Amino acid sequence: MVQSQSTNGLPTAVDLGHHINSRSRARHPSPLKDIIRFMAVDDMVSLAGGLPHPSFFPFHTVTVTASGPTVKKSTCSLELPLEEILQYGSGAGHPQLRSWCREFTQRVHQPAYADWEVLLHPGNTNAWSKVVGLLCEPDDYILCESYTYPSAQAFWIPLGNKAAPVPADAEGMRADALNQILHDWEDTHPGTRQPHVLYLVSVGSNPSGVTMSTKRRRHIYDVCVEYDIIIVEDDPYFFLQYPNYDTSLSATDAPELVSSDDFLRSLTPSMLQFDHQGRVIRLESFSKTLAPGLRLGYFVANSVFTERLLRATEVETQDPSGLSQALVLRLVEHWGIDGYLGWLQRLGVEYRRRRDWMINAFSQHFRLEHAAGTGSTLLAYLNGVPIFSFVPPTGGMFIWACFYLAQNPAFEEQRHEPDVVDPEQAVADQLWQQFAEAKVLLAPGSYYHPWQGPDKVTTNARGANPATTYFRFSFSMTTKEEMERGIARMAQVIRASWKLEH
Amino acid sequence: MVQSQSTNGLPTAVDLGHHINSRSRARHPSPLKDIIRFMAVDDMVSLAGGLPHPSFFPFHTVTVTASGPTVKKSTCSLELPLEEILQYGSGAGHPQLRSWCREFTQRVHQPAYADWEVLLHPGNTNAWSKVVGLLCEPDDYILCESYTYPSAQAFWIPLGNKAAPVPADAEGMRADALNQILHDWEDTHPGTRQPHVLYLVSVGSNPSGVTMSTKRRRHIYDVCVEYDIIIVEDDPYFFLQYPNYDTSLSATDAPELVSSDDFLRSLTPSMLQFDHQGRVIRLESFSKTLAPGLRLGYFVANSVFTERLLRATEVETQDPSGLSQALVLRLVEHWGIDGYLGWLQRLGVEYRRRRDWMINAFSQHFRLEHAAGTGSTLLAYLNGVPIFSFVPPTGGMFIWACFYLAQNPAFEEQRHEPDVVDPEQAVADQLWQQFAEAKVLLAPGSYYHPWQGPDKVTTNARGANPATTYFRFSFSMTTKEEMERGIARMAQVIRASWKLEH
Repeated sequence: MVQSQSTNGLPTAVDLGHHINSRSRARHPSPLKDIIRFMAVDDMVSLAGGLPHPSFFPFHTVTVTASGPTVKKSTCSLELPLEEILQYGSGAGHPQLRSWCREFTQRVHQPAYADWEVLLHPGNTNAWSKVVGLLCEPDDYILCESYTYPSAQAFWIPLGNKAAPVPADAEGMRADALNQILHDWEDTHPGTRQPHVLYLVSVGSNPSGVTMSTKRRRHIYDVCVEYDIIIVEDDPYFFLQYPNYDTSLSATDAPELVSSDDFLRSLTPSMLQFDHQGRVIRLESFSKTLAPGLRLGYFVANSVFTERLLRATEVETQDPSGLSQALVLRLVEHWGIDGYLGWLQRLGVEYRRRRDWMINAFSQHFRLEHAAGTGSTLLAYLNGVPIFSFVPPTGGMFIWACFYLAQNPAFEEQRHEPDVVDPEQAVADQLWQQFAEAKVLLAPGSYYHPWQGPDKVTTNARGANPATTYFRFSFSMTTKEEMERGIARMAQVIRASWKLEH
Repeated sequence: MVQSQSTNGLPTAVDLGHHINSRSRARHPSPLKDIIRFMAVDDMVSLAGGLPHPSFFPFHTVTVTASGPTVKKSTCSLELPLEEILQYGSGAGHPQLRSWCREFTQRVHQPAYADWEVLLHPGNTNAWSKVVGLLCEPDDYILCESYTYPSAQAFWIPLGNKAAPVPADAEGMRADALNQILHDWEDTHPGTRQPHVLYLVSVGSNPSGVTMSTKRRRHIYDVCVEYDIIIVEDDPYFFLQYPNYDTSLSATDAPELVSSDDFLRSLTPSMLQFDHQGRVIRLESFSKTLAPGLRLGYFVANSVFTERLLRATEVETQDPSGLSQALVLRLVEHWGIDGYLGWLQRLGVEYRRRRDWMINAFSQHFRLEHAAGTGSTLLAYLNGVPIFSFVPPTGGMFIWACFYLAQNPAFEEQRHEPDVVDPEQAVADQLWQQFAEAKVLLAPGSYYHPWQGPDKVTTNARGANPATTYFRFSFSMTTKEEMERGIARMAQVIRASWKLEH
């Protein structure tokens, strides 16, 4: 792969066009391009377009009041530029908003190559569907984390794609494991194409809550270079990064806010910062930082990919909602990049507080201890029995807890039932039901099992640790009191299920 | 196909599930449904969801000033219900907006069966991509008009689908031709699957401008029942229906507005009104009636189809933009159905006026005469030479003109060049270029050729009339003066190309 040097000293992307699938390759640019070129000619009369007349749009003004970016409850009033956003767009999004996203990306991620591009999209759900449409052939395997986001899978499973999950530790996906899977692929998956796409939620992963360390990122990137893998970094939680959980700090302590540059330095860098070849496609979203109902985000990727993604956009969605574009544009213009970074810093503080509430609620009912030899992992005991363990998340909205069933009498019973194919899952289902009846809802771990085909659905067949099962705890939406109530209820169900005395 | 009777006297849909393709069939409902059921329980603590906390959405109020629905320049001020639309939605859209769309559909279209459903979507471009994803297998042929909308094709061509165009006359697609194509399919297309999807823009078709007559609709529907065809009615121009062009009326005459019921009676009914089996999928859009930048519309279809379309929505797009939904909801609530119908009636008057401007501009430079034996078709002569013909549209935004090249000297020359494969297209390209250089842009007819495969691209191979080519004139965006200037320039180019004296 030939790589040349650009004028700003950064390399330009290597040629990665061979990753584009046959359908995406077959897309033609809209023939209207010829017409658009001529439309710019002075005094041209265009009878070619098919646009409705803007004088018949019934909206005159849209005015928004919004928070100021500062800590105080200041507000600002924004008038949206309606004339620019009520008509059909070009597919790529409003030029000013795109250019703001470009500037913001440069400031935050400092991509390691020169010729990357920004393209707006209507949210990461749609962005991922377009990336699969760009890169994957039917029946391709897709590399992913050992537990992965169900909606991403729900899109690719009906296309015939399967997951190739990569084991992880507390630093995120293991580079040695990724290397091994790719090295052994022909032997382990004869007759199938070696995976060339890695789907990754590398900050506050959903469900594992893990944020990949800087060192690990470098190693993962190197393996991807060696095996020619495209990394799709779905990163909605990037700005929700927190310091380590520390029992000595009260969750109500308001940490000192720092300068934008110090804030950015405190964040684990994205894969883009290592991407000297242009093999990272970032899916950026405003859903977790401004509001999901906007249905707005953007791709940052190699121009070879954004050009094809634009072709898909033209025939699959067109521009994101003009109102959403205009609202975000006016807000970030008004706040400025530093204002927005301040907003994000404060948002991180708020969600960190909620993480601490949740772990503190655990500690009210369970004895939390560092698991031997595992670094940050905490083990939760009840009456001296290890019940579950988790890595206190340093990002995102989730705690992913591994429950130990070995000392659970119901599990002991199920594993000796000859009819029960998957005793771990049977007990997990039972527990979930008991939690729900006690009025605490958790997300069942089974939602996040990578789909490897119908022969790999049981705990045993998946190669998962025996006598374990997972539940995901979300700390984003509940108050401190609700969390405490929920965890108390859970502890009670566990006492009953494990037959532990009060 | 078994059909039962519903309580309101209308039949319920027949079972059409066999039209759903294998990918769409393979989609599973989100497992979160179980959780959602429990969430409604009183005092439940949910740690299951993954939603961002709404207190961190920085938007406080959105206020819109909009036109009143009346003729006068009255305005109204609308406050959008932010708390309901900034969070993730269910995929199906805001319940109140869906129910408004349902009520509106009942009032306007009176579907002929009982169990139809409404599902919101982010614009007809996306809706069509979802319908292809619902119904079509790769390599399926798709029935369409003899000239069809390029963006719809641009989506399906890379999937391996091809068009099966059906000849039309001034009343729209010919039912006898549709019947013939399906009857002869096995002979004409051995080894391919008989088409089961008809893509139709039945009002003010793009590009042909033709609105299908009521009688023709009935016949087309009957053929579709006989051959078990699903009709996809992409109908953005439904409310832009006009009376016949009448040279005796001045285009500036403001017609009397009529009651909503009389207005609705004046409109050609949609296919839904004949749909006693549930085989019509309507793609409804607010792009031409409110604003394209909203990226908002809705499906009306058999619940067997909307259920699968909702599954696709969950993994491909999620809800349309909450802002767009809220804006349209507040507007139509404020206007009421009759207010909105009044708005639509006036919109039709405005676009009708523009149609008349365009045809009047033709008549300033060409002698327009009714073509013998063709009903409404007008023929445009210059110096006694027939140059082009068109059916004055009674809907939409386009005039589709067939140019006669037989007396064009350049064509005479090209057709005798042994190297020129498609002399019609060669002259069309030349003419387009000459028009553009004279500063009038038309949309080339070739954009609208149905893609039947690489062996059917020339005028001859497509079976098109020899010595003809098409251009599309849009009358939606230009002023009367611009149209007149544009048509004057075109007439001059034609004089030169046809070598006609002044």
